[in-house]
Amino acid sequence: MKKLIKNVHVLTMDAEKTEYPNGYIMIADNMIDAVGGMEHAPDEKAVEEIVDGKQAIAMPGMVNTHTHIGMIPFRSLGDDYPDRLRRFLFPLEQECMTEELAYHSGKYAIAEMQLAGVTTFMDMYYFEDALAQATDEMGSRAILGETVIDFPTCDADTAHGGLDYAQSFIPKWLNHELITPAIAPHAPNTNSPEALKEAVRLSEQYQIPLTMHVAEMDYELDHFRDTLDMTSVEFLDSIGALSERLVAAHCIHLTDQDIDLLKKHHVKVAHCIGANTKSAKGVARISDLLDKQIPVGLGTDGPSSGNTLDLFTQMKLFANFHKTELKDRGAFPASEIVELATMGGARVLGMENQIGSLESGKKADIVLVETCSVNMFPLFDPYAALVYSANAGNVQDVFINGKRTVKDKVLMDRSIAELRQNLAEQMKEFTVKAKERL
Amino acid sequence: MKKLIKNVHVLTMDAEKTEYPNGYIMIADNMIDAVGGMEHAPDEKAVEEIVDGKQAIAMPGMVNTHTHIGMIPFRSLGDDYPDRLRRFLFPLEQECMTEELAYHSGKYAIAEMQLAGVTTFMDMYYFEDALAQATDEMGSRAILGETVIDFPTCDADTAHGGLDYAQSFIPKWLNHELITPAIAPHAPNTNSPEALKEAVRLSEQYQIPLTMHVAEMDYELDHFRDTLDMTSVEFLDSIGALSERLVAAHCIHLTDQDIDLLKKHHVKVAHCIGANTKSAKGVARISDLLDKQIPVGLGTDGPSSGNTLDLFTQMKLFANFHKTELKDRGAFPASEIVELATMGGARVLGMENQIGSLESGKKADIVLVETCSVNMFPLFDPYAALVYSANAGNVQDVFINGKRTVKDKVLMDRSIAELRQNLAEQMKEFTVKAKERL
Repeated sequence: MKKLIKNVHVLTMDAEKTEYPNGYIMIADNMIDAVGGMEHAPDEKAVEEIVDGKQAIAMPGMVNTHTHIGMIPFRSLGDDYPDRLRRFLFPLEQECMTEELAYHSGKYAIAEMQLAGVTTFMDMYYFEDALAQATDEMGSRAILGETVIDFPTCDADTAHGGLDYAQSFIPKWLNHELITPAIAPHAPNTNSPEALKEAVRLSEQYQIPLTMHVAEMDYELDHFRDTLDMTSVEFLDSIGALSERLVAAHCIHLTDQDIDLLKKHHVKVAHCIGANTKSAKGVARISDLLDKQIPVGLGTDGPSSGNTLDLFTQMKLFANFHKTELKDRGAFPASEIVELATMGGARVLGMENQIGSLESGKKADIVLVETCSVNMFPLFDPYAALVYSANAGNVQDVFINGKRTVKDKVLMDRSIAELRQNLAEQMKEFTVKAKERL
Repeated sequence: MKKLIKNVHVLTMDAEKTEYPNGYIMIADNMIDAVGGMEHAPDEKAVEEIVDGKQAIAMPGMVNTHTHIGMIPFRSLGDDYPDRLRRFLFPLEQECMTEELAYHSGKYAIAEMQLAGVTTFMDMYYFEDALAQATDEMGSRAILGETVIDFPTCDADTAHGGLDYAQSFIPKWLNHELITPAIAPHAPNTNSPEALKEAVRLSEQYQIPLTMHVAEMDYELDHFRDTLDMTSVEFLDSIGALSERLVAAHCIHLTDQDIDLLKKHHVKVAHCIGANTKSAKGVARISDLLDKQIPVGLGTDGPSSGNTLDLFTQMKLFANFHKTELKDRGAFPASEIVELATMGGARVLGMENQIGSLESGKKADIVLVETCSVNMFPLFDPYAALVYSANAGNVQDVFINGKRTVKDKVLMDRSIAELRQNLAEQMKEFTVKAKERL
């Protein structure tokens, strides 16, 4: 089955950042068959479906390297409370999070990402089996990590019960075309060293990713300094948890030695600038990480922390925060930021040979961003338009693994109204309990 | 002529931040007649037009306190060049900016603001007479300041020619219902003291606002320190330029003494967090200004600096930057940020008795933000949804001075395609010359 996308400004995001200002992309089944200028476009008679891009910017599907798709119910709840985590999140998850609620939240969150041009994401939450089901139904590409934490949770009666959950969850989804199961210890300070080691062992046994919040919280750093005279990265090193399988989320507070350790062990970093700064935690040393060739991608964090699941918001915040941190308006030109949202994320997830750029032989994960809305003119630099002007509402069409999931800004096979209604139905008890805590 | 807006979650932004979660707004001609809960809504038979808000959030029209509407042609041009101002902006304005180009840029920019819920703006540019014409045609509320600068410009053959231009521009527009003319010296260091004094004299003579970039550039501060051993605010004080008529844009670099001077002279501040941080200039001391009850509003800056002309982007950046600066996630809760975008801006422009809140007796400048898009659910806190989740694309309906200018996300009386075509037509020479400089 061949599909031709024509009349688009192609940003391939290949190593040379090749552009085709008037270009085409040919899809064969789930793969990119060819990319080039319209003057070399294939004969339209040899194609089953033709998509006129109408001068949209065509870019690789964006990669969200850190989120919690089960947490849509928490959005706009207690954003500005200093004690939000312990006042709302932990207790409401304990009391009200069910498999059904997580599943419907997951579908809604995936719909939101697709509509925003995010075609691949890495998740950390509970009930990951239900979230895998949701991901499968919605047709997104994902790495899904079951959370492990040192108290009983909504999906486990005992501390570190996620380890047991993962024992059945991981093998079940190991050979899925779009889904990779993973294990996700919550943080270095919210797990016993034994549980962390067991999570590492599972990731080695199944050769799957491990993801964890690392160096995010001031009390996390205090804990390891006070008890072990270590940083949390040094602690993770001491128990053998640093490896190329680890996607370390946040990494806000790193020493030079921490950065050297991440480099030495080929750890990858999911950078959540929006969530980190909304919560006043600080700005991670991304420039220093990239100088050492440590892979960095962008992450939205969950909808209660980052609020939206689109990477346009993250790209804009990234630009302004890191230019300001470095006191250099020339730092991180827009094309580098688009790279972080695409190839950067692909590298973080170990998928750089499959996704992240528009090149022949890669999976057909493609996003068209329209340029007819008022904010998208003029277009001297399409990268700048994506970073500084665009928002999620400019996403016109989305293809994942060759399948179109968004057409003219609308989901192909679902309605948002229906997804929302299903979610709202499941949220009734949650909503009552949440309001009691306000 | 009476219009009833019904079924909306009204954020009045009055002194008590009164909300009507299921409310109505009654418009009589160009004024707000009544606001309240639906249980007290007037008889629909007594109304000429009924607008069903469909559970949208109704908020006061937003106030953009600093922009340059003639600069749409510069958007996405050289964003990341360190020497952007002198490499692109100044020379291209000299070479290619015409009255016609400014006019069509102005109409396009005003359309963009209306579609984003900005109903009032303060402008600083050239050819302000043409921009007043554009504003009049588009039906927005505005204060329009003719630029004065110490070199010949696109609309004046001599240095400080804006002063002459203003002599005819100001009286022509003094009695317009929606437009207030103003005088806009570019900056303290780009005008002679004499020219600045003459601008101040004009503002006194006509009792009109004065606006200026203040304490924005490091070389501006260096200049006054090196030549006069003063800050730029101290310099402005020394020549009598500080007054309640001054809207000082940016104010990034202020000393405690500067803040006291602004307070003493009742100066108002237009805070452009997006432009200031994208250009790596820094974060203004807004918390300190507000602690002294100095009026602060939000500004987008021009489309080449802030790229978009919506205040949703600014509200989100404001939240994340100021929380991070203050190391306090509880600082500036969302409702305070929505206040800056509405009543705050109204105070900065000296219009707090006319606009900025939804109260009986105020002008009917009203924005409905829909809540059916994927990013707007759930809605535990509508202020948080506006600040952390919404984007300009969520604006559903806009009323300015009682007249509906946006209906269901589309301009009422214009098409963006046509406004863009007219602008592109005028941009031909500009585009050629701009590309030569890349």
